[in-house]
Amino acid sequence: MKFSPLVDDLIKALQCLPGVGPRSAQRMAFQLLERDRQGGARLGDALATAMREVGHCRQCRTYTEQDLCQICANPKRGETGQLCVVESPADLLAIESAGQYAGRYFVLMGHLSPLDGIGPDDIGLDSLDAMLAAESWREVILATNPTVEGDATAQYIADMAREHGAEISRIAHGVPVGGELEYVDGTTLALSFSGRKKL
Amino acid sequence: MKFSPLVDDLIKALQCLPGVGPRSAQRMAFQLLERDRQGGARLGDALATAMREVGHCRQCRTYTEQDLCQICANPKRGETGQLCVVESPADLLAIESAGQYAGRYFVLMGHLSPLDGIGPDDIGLDSLDAMLAAESWREVILATNPTVEGDATAQYIADMAREHGAEISRIAHGVPVGGELEYVDGTTLALSFSGRKKL
Ligand SMILES: [Zn+2]
Ligand SMILES: [Zn+2]
Repeated sequence: MKFSPLVDDLIKALQCLPGVGPRSAQRMAFQLLERDRQGGARLGDALATAMREVGHCRQCRTYTEQDLCQICANPKRGETGQLCVVESPADLLAIESAGQYAGRYFVLMGHLSPLDGIGPDDIGLDSLDAMLAAESWREVILATNPTVEGDATAQYIADMAREHGAEISRIAHGVPVGGELEYVDGTTLALSFSGRKKL
Repeated sequence: MKFSPLVDDLIKALQCLPGVGPRSAQRMAFQLLERDRQGGARLGDALATAMREVGHCRQCRTYTEQDLCQICANPKRGETGQLCVVESPADLLAIESAGQYAGRYFVLMGHLSPLDGIGPDDIGLDSLDAMLAAESWREVILATNPTVEGDATAQYIADMAREHGAEISRIAHGVPVGGELEYVDGTTLALSFSGRKKL
């Protein structure tokens, strides 16, 4: 025991947070105890409630404490007949923030990774297959990350979706807007060339 | 609202932690929801309990949920007649870890900082004064940080303690053991020269 039992417990418990080691946990504990007990108590409540009540949307698998998330529950989002497949809720949020896309989502909560034992069912592809069969979709947009695993996952889903007759697309990869060519990596630059459009 | 209300609450509440902005709060929330709900729930409990129950030791002011901390409650620690004054519980822990000191502590929970409106009573010097008057101390060791504020605080306490007749000392400052002279700052090096000992 280093401090009092409750302080030690707190410092230990804080280390479940990603990127938080013993020293920063100690700094966090002291900061809350000394300057922000209200914030600390609020965080305690928020954690307890979220860990207990947040589950996954029955349809798209993103986080929600309801049966359906806000997007799936909105009938307008189904009208476009588009389904965008992303790896994580953070990716979904990034696309929503861009403000262009008005269709629905499917959130894999990961990507295929045979070496880590993560197969199709672990990322919900059985549900996705059922969803593609149950409704008629105009377009399935594959927005997994442009990584080896993301590309392989997109390819797998493309093969699966093709059997349901939907049009399949992959988001474009290339030089980011505002990015300087000089600092863009070779793979991105190669993708940017192979995906060039006629003007 | 970006995610569901409970997830948004959690992401917002996590930002009370020092050094945690919106993006790392989001990463933390997702990590807990996806991979460590048990750890998250445990942290929620630890926070709620600590924020509610941890107070300050009646004698030395360090954090504890008891009336007296473990050190003050240990009669052996009073036998040396030594009182070490530190700025924070973390400093106390550092000294305890060094394993040399066997006396008692007084934890200021800060330092004098007139510009921020932090005066003697804010760092418990009224209690310290009472404590110095109530018991007879052999030595008061000033272990505040070697900063402008820490030095000023040590000076202030030295003047106060002198009236109670205790011997007063300041911990030595100099080149850290294992430190390379080349990389030590000038002030430390100057202190290290002025504090040199005859061999
Ligand atoms: Zn949904
Ligand atoms: Zn104490």
